Amino acid sequence: MERTRIIQVLKSETHGHGVLIKGWVRTRRDSRDVIFLEVNDGSCLDNIQVIIGEEMMKRPDLAQVSTGASVAVRGTLVESPAKGQKYEIRAGEVEVYGLADPESYPLQKKKHSFEFLREISHLRPRTNTFGAVFRIRNAMAMAIHSFFQEKGFLYVHTPIITASDCEGAGEMFNVTMLDLEKMKITGGKADFAEDFFGKKTSLTVSGQLEGELLALSLGDIYTFGPTFRAENSNTSRHLSEFWMVEPEMAFAVLDDDIRLAEEFIKRIFSLCLEKCGDDMAFFDSRIQPGIIKNLESIIRQDFEVVTYTEAVGILEKSGSAFEFPVGWGLDLQSEHERYLTENHFERPVFVIDYPREIKAFYMKLNDDEKTVRAMDLLVPGVGEIIGGSEREDRYDVLLRRMKDSGLDPDEYWWYLDSRRYGSAPHAGFGLGFERAIQYVTGMQNIRDVIPFPRTPRNAAF
Amino acid sequence: MERTRIIQVLKSETHGHGVLIKGWVRTRRDSRDVIFLEVNDGSCLDNIQVIIGEEMMKRPDLAQVSTGASVAVRGTLVESPAKGQKYEIRAGEVEVYGLADPESYPLQKKKHSFEFLREISHLRPRTNTFGAVFRIRNAMAMAIHSFFQEKGFLYVHTPIITASDCEGAGEMFNVTMLDLEKMKITGGKADFAEDFFGKKTSLTVSGQLEGELLALSLGDIYTFGPTFRAENSNTSRHLSEFWMVEPEMAFAVLDDDIRLAEEFIKRIFSLCLEKCGDDMAFFDSRIQPGIIKNLESIIRQDFEVVTYTEAVGILEKSGSAFEFPVGWGLDLQSEHERYLTENHFERPVFVIDYPREIKAFYMKLNDDEKTVRAMDLLVPGVGEIIGGSEREDRYDVLLRRMKDSGLDPDEYWWYLDSRRYGSAPHAGFGLGFERAIQYVTGMQNIRDVIPFPRTPRNAAF
Repeated sequence: MERTRIIQVLKSETHGHGVLIKGWVRTRRDSRDVIFLEVNDGSCLDNIQVIIGEEMMKRPDLAQVSTGASVAVRGTLVESPAKGQKYEIRAGEVEVYGLADPESYPLQKKKHSFEFLREISHLRPRTNTFGAVFRIRNAMAMAIHSFFQEKGFLYVHTPIITASDCEGAGEMFNVTMLDLEKMKITGGKADFAEDFFGKKTSLTVSGQLEGELLALSLGDIYTFGPTFRAENSNTSRHLSEFWMVEPEMAFAVLDDDIRLAEEFIKRIFSLCLEKCGDDMAFFDSRIQPGIIKNLESIIRQDFEVVTYTEAVGILEKSGSAFEFPVGWGLDLQSEHERYLTENHFERPVFVIDYPREIKAFYMKLNDDEKTVRAMDLLVPGVGEIIGGSEREDRYDVLLRRMKDSGLDPDEYWWYLDSRRYGSAPHAGFGLGFERAIQYVTGMQNIRDVIPFPRTPRNAAF
Repeated sequence: MERTRIIQVLKSETHGHGVLIKGWVRTRRDSRDVIFLEVNDGSCLDNIQVIIGEEMMKRPDLAQVSTGASVAVRGTLVESPAKGQKYEIRAGEVEVYGLADPESYPLQKKKHSFEFLREISHLRPRTNTFGAVFRIRNAMAMAIHSFFQEKGFLYVHTPIITASDCEGAGEMFNVTMLDLEKMKITGGKADFAEDFFGKKTSLTVSGQLEGELLALSLGDIYTFGPTFRAENSNTSRHLSEFWMVEPEMAFAVLDDDIRLAEEFIKRIFSLCLEKCGDDMAFFDSRIQPGIIKNLESIIRQDFEVVTYTEAVGILEKSGSAFEFPVGWGLDLQSEHERYLTENHFERPVFVIDYPREIKAFYMKLNDDEKTVRAMDLLVPGVGEIIGGSEREDRYDVLLRRMKDSGLDPDEYWWYLDSRRYGSAPHAGFGLGFERAIQYVTGMQNIRDVIPFPRTPRNAAF
């Protein structure tokens, strides 16, 4: 008999037939003549109850089965008299694959703090919360792919190891094969010509520049891969290694970018609600009450568009006592972003046309020469969730902006080439995948939405 | 009017209506009173021909349009009198976005060598071959996702930066934030406690160990992410950075693994043929004649299964003059693999039960104590395309094998925990994504199936 996943067993339309399930015991309860096991196999939030009759109660291996043990159960699917579950399995045969010593198994049936569970990231996917998080993570990843594939975007892979420092988006990790213990330093400089790639290399902070090259050949593309920040930020919103989604469209201007981002966010949220109903109900009841309603309202609302200049005016007139100063030319802080989306507009809002000084060199300069065609999407609860722009497609302006930003144009000859040969308007944006999962699940700490988080002083597992 | 992709325009069921296309000029030809442009937008292999009439011929910007320029054309879709194309566009309006100086634009209409095109990896996606490669790459990636998603596997992300050296699969790149130019060496050792993660870290060579942890919680999972090898291999089959697919199934033994791998390979090849007919026809006619027939025959055939011991016997009896020696205990070389699959079995073949000494520590030891439950899938034309195994799920045996392999069990406490608590039979395999693309397209050099290849002394773009 083939194993059936518990999600399928629980969806059975009939009962009375034989089934074979395999999974991990969540709890065991013994009565005088029956053992009750709650078994979970990761396929869904729900366990299935297994009833083991008197005839097997004396088996020594079964005597040792406790929370965490893995078992195979062959038996008959029957209606359950117990409340809250439709079916249970009356066991015919039970095979014990692996025990879990109750003295040392860390996941006993009690509430563990997320801090504690982070220390055992290798076992936490066996809990309700983390099983649900990783099923949602899977559903979100697939929602992203299906959104772009349906629109005819090509999934591309941009390099992880890079010799360029895209946009100075953040501190970069060095990648080297130099013998760190026998470094040869000449005139205060390490000789990277001796290194594996013949030059200094780092881990990418963004695939955008390479993504632009591919968009300016293939039309519409998106990346979905890991990116890195070597910043010493020990917050609930920062990871040293995280996954990013970066679409890029040829022949598109800022308006197209805004339309794409709105449709994208609505669609991935819808798909999550649709595909992961049980898991979402769990987050709604146990992690962040009201989160489903919040997502539904985002899906329903028309997003607002406001210029940075208007946004600053709104904040200045708000009368709110902000911690950080507000003023034209200053970057918006999280508290300002949240005021705009939560208090003023009461819906998601795109802020566009930011001052050039606070945005990256590759964003297209407006005719006022003061602002660039940037867009940040702000959502209630967190502030910025997406950042993007129309790109500077004029060779001479781009060159000037690179020099102004202290970048060496010779290092970026290939990027400049894309504006020298067949340049075209194009635009794109970036979404931090883990932040989007935090938003959908209500999980407060970003370390709890990726299987094995990398943060300062932590690369365990 | 909205832009329509050329792939859609060419599929139109009607004509006579207005269309707006945007793309890059592949060729320009002028007659006395008409300009002919072949325009491609990356959405498909085919160009569309644009006819620009006399009234526009004198426009100075149009005079400069040449190969590589990007344009928007609004016009009427009409039947083409020319052979080999169904439609063409009679231009009403033409907008020129960007020119491409014919003196310097490197992609002129002539045959360029792949070596030359590698030097301009930022422009090569604008050629027929590379457009087709990257569309196939997208289709393969999606085929992989849909295969596993339909089977209920969860897509998971395992860490890129790691403090462990999985299976000693290869040389690893160091990841560091230590100041390479001011390294403090104490007693001949660098002080990694001072480094970003507080220990020595590297780029992953495989997500398998972490994948196992997730399978032993969630059931069936797969990874699809970048992996790295810091080996000085300058061959047409090696990249320093490549993408790998690694499924892992709980409650599965070697037979299940073999079944999964066979179904997987057949399905992703089928989906490629199905979704990318035009691009595959291009590879079949221009890159490797017969490749479609080869893939079709693989899809149709039952794969063979043979033990390593039997395979060695076959090779010894073959009478072939191999370059490398054949003998029990020696690893199979590519020439041996190809003999088995091409000459002896004339179909794909799984070789199983390899000697423990030539395989990784985590593979399950057979009762003979000499062999392990490994499987390599060999296919005609290249040899090994997939490698996998049932994993050692017995705590004591795994511990012994780790020690025998010189690994420090204390470093892998979390991996051992998965066998200490609720261990279960499980199995998985790995597919190098770029090698699979090479196989499907017939591209001879692996550097030509990834947008921006990383190889020794090369991290350009």
